[in-house]
Amino acid sequence: MKKNKKCVVLLSGGLDSTTTLYYVIKQGYKPVCLIFDYGQRHKKEIYCAKKIAKSLGLKYYVVKFGLPWKGSSLINKKLKLTKSKHKNVIPLTYVPARNIIFLSFATSLAEVIDANYIFFGANQIDFSGYPDCRQEFVDAFQKMINVGTKKGVSGKKIKIVAPLINLTKEEIVKLAVKLGVPLQNTWSCYKGAKRPCGSCDSCRFRKMGFKKAGLVDPLDKK
Amino acid sequence: MKKNKKCVVLLSGGLDSTTTLYYVIKQGYKPVCLIFDYGQRHKKEIYCAKKIAKSLGLKYYVVKFGLPWKGSSLINKKLKLTKSKHKNVIPLTYVPARNIIFLSFATSLAEVIDANYIFFGANQIDFSGYPDCRQEFVDAFQKMINVGTKKGVSGKKIKIVAPLINLTKEEIVKLAVKLGVPLQNTWSCYKGAKRPCGSCDSCRFRKMGFKKAGLVDPLDKK
Repeated sequence: MKKNKKCVVLLSGGLDSTTTLYYVIKQGYKPVCLIFDYGQRHKKEIYCAKKIAKSLGLKYYVVKFGLPWKGSSLINKKLKLTKSKHKNVIPLTYVPARNIIFLSFATSLAEVIDANYIFFGANQIDFSGYPDCRQEFVDAFQKMINVGTKKGVSGKKIKIVAPLINLTKEEIVKLAVKLGVPLQNTWSCYKGAKRPCGSCDSCRFRKMGFKKAGLVDPLDKK
Repeated sequence: MKKNKKCVVLLSGGLDSTTTLYYVIKQGYKPVCLIFDYGQRHKKEIYCAKKIAKSLGLKYYVVKFGLPWKGSSLINKKLKLTKSKHKNVIPLTYVPARNIIFLSFATSLAEVIDANYIFFGANQIDFSGYPDCRQEFVDAFQKMINVGTKKGVSGKKIKIVAPLINLTKEEIVKLAVKLGVPLQNTWSCYKGAKRPCGSCDSCRFRKMGFKKAGLVDPLDKK
């Protein structure tokens, strides 16, 4: 049993990050949630993330920032929510350096609260091809914070863990159900309507996951 | 002559970042300035940074964010602006992961405007021992964005350059004078009073630089 099980969990309120949070709790870690308000197209995911953290009685922080240069359809309503058609083409929904920024804030928080772990729900199997969702990126970020932080240089490294990175969406859905994740409270759709649009990349991956797992998404029942 | 000389320059309005900016222009780069409003103890440096960018007719962005967990005396007035007494002790003015966060935003901007360079004024000679001001950190950050960005994975790497990293403060002051940096418009002091306090770490390093260079700081004449 490790002594310090305090950790930071990046929480977007979606399927992957919420499953990561439940997984982390199951493993005996003590999470502090980190939620971002970065000018998303809709605030629904922030609302869902807060609701999930509150329902578990967890401490959470909301970091607010804007990217004045936009550059992604997820933060610029003038751009289309294009789908990833080819495996090698990064779609317009890619927010430049988003996970780099998210993990940087998580690193700052981990330094301050003396957490030895940062967990995030990146996935490189059923994903849109974003470069900052791959294990290779996680490894490089790890090396960077080992030399660029106070904890790192003092030998008490902050470990970045992406437990879902090699799971398929089907496996993530099954894990979520096993862990008792309240799937009806998660939100994955890039749009913030009353019901998921069903056609954006995020919806398509989620739908495929449920279908392959032989389960019905509670959001589709509503 | 390289084709694309567009670059992002981190600009705090202090001696080092302003000298970096002037150096970059002298080298023929086309800078876009990136200024941060992150809840500093005072807004004076933001005012100075904007004034410098404007005076050069440069485009600039101000990114605003807060660190709700504080954790440094530079963003928490309840903590003291302690000085670095020993080389191996990181002082309370260290803002956890600050340069990691700054460079992450710079990476995002560079992706969007298709800039191939990010310049920043880190210095590892006469400095407070912050881990994220060292060449080792810059190298690790470089490797991380090579695999974590769209430009990186497409082979058009964004190069991080810290041209002052191995200069002493004396050399930086001399370079600033040579480049015609309007030193009277820069601000290094951690406090935002009418005149520099003269005793914080930042003031002490600046004073030492001017003294060793045999020059008078125009801010001391005011």
